[in-house]
Amino acid sequence: MQRQGLLIVISGPSGAGKGTICKALLQKNKDLKISVSCTTRSPREGEREGINYYFVSKEKFEDMIEKNEFLEYATVYGNYYGTPRKYVEEELKKGNDVILEIDIQGALMVKERYPEGVFIFILPPSMEELKNRIIKRGSETEDSLNTRFTAAFEEIKYMSKYDYAVVNDYVDEAVKKIECIIVAEKCKCNRMLRAGYFEQEG
Amino acid sequence: MQRQGLLIVISGPSGAGKGTICKALLQKNKDLKISVSCTTRSPREGEREGINYYFVSKEKFEDMIEKNEFLEYATVYGNYYGTPRKYVEEELKKGNDVILEIDIQGALMVKERYPEGVFIFILPPSMEELKNRIIKRGSETEDSLNTRFTAAFEEIKYMSKYDYAVVNDYVDEAVKKIECIIVAEKCKCNRMLRAGYFEQEG
Repeated sequence: MQRQGLLIVISGPSGAGKGTICKALLQKNKDLKISVSCTTRSPREGEREGINYYFVSKEKFEDMIEKNEFLEYATVYGNYYGTPRKYVEEELKKGNDVILEIDIQGALMVKERYPEGVFIFILPPSMEELKNRIIKRGSETEDSLNTRFTAAFEEIKYMSKYDYAVVNDYVDEAVKKIECIIVAEKCKCNRMLRAGYFEQEG
Repeated sequence: MQRQGLLIVISGPSGAGKGTICKALLQKNKDLKISVSCTTRSPREGEREGINYYFVSKEKFEDMIEKNEFLEYATVYGNYYGTPRKYVEEELKKGNDVILEIDIQGALMVKERYPEGVFIFILPPSMEELKNRIIKRGSETEDSLNTRFTAAFEEIKYMSKYDYAVVNDYVDEAVKKIECIIVAEKCKCNRMLRAGYFEQEG
């Protein structure tokens, strides 16, 4: 029986280092597939079609929305960004694990459609620093602490919607944790039973 | 804030190789604590008091039951087996991870008290292999062999009550998977949030 691949969603606040982590993860694990997003923004220098993004026109993008061809999409600063559904679904069906590197808004949309995905929240190392400052108490003025709390907790409150949180203090360590999460998820009883892994041998 | 340790329950049908896996796991991970069970059965050759089991009389065991000193206990083939509560609770409170190697009946009792434990079901590579392993152990009469076979097949059904299943085809591989499960569990958002990992103070 062909076992379905895992959809691994790497997400978190901007500046957390999602991109760096995904790059290192993919370099170490050649069998992982990465989903390439579509966007209507212009390519930046060095960006390549089909590697960084699929660059499409606004008309084309809206036509794809119409045809329900996105797993998730969003508008950021007037440009569309979206994850084409077809590639992801095909790879999962083949039994390949697929990485999605997306923002929080997109991840929550994917979770509605794919609750069986693995949702990993990347925390910036500054969050660790913040935690240390909170513990040390009184090393900052109350005003500056409050400003930081507000920003940090706005983002953190979405963390509870995720399955895992990985602090990006050292990229290698963060990648190892994600690799472990993938191994562990494949050992989950509900996944193994769903895949018919132990159907009676007679 | 002191983070509570993980209670890791390694369980599964008799003959699956729980003991071998635990031994290898502990040898590689010196910071893991193992809970030693009490039993009223006689020591097998090579078994040592306080290492393999605490060997106690039936009277002593029943007295401990009376005093609610077990996290779980059960009768298997006419003998009592039980996990003394005190050691486990003290180590978890200190932030140490504790391994329990117990049978399915016991694991289900622990799950009722500690649903936040990590429940890992060890599977033999195949049911054929399970039979061979029980036979090879050689410490059984034919009647007791048949009883054990029937029980083992019955027990596979309980897998769905566990969080993870690890097939014991190669011990090293099985141990690596369990190590990953421990790493992954520590990244779980609900554990990090419950531990107050990101709580706002003051």
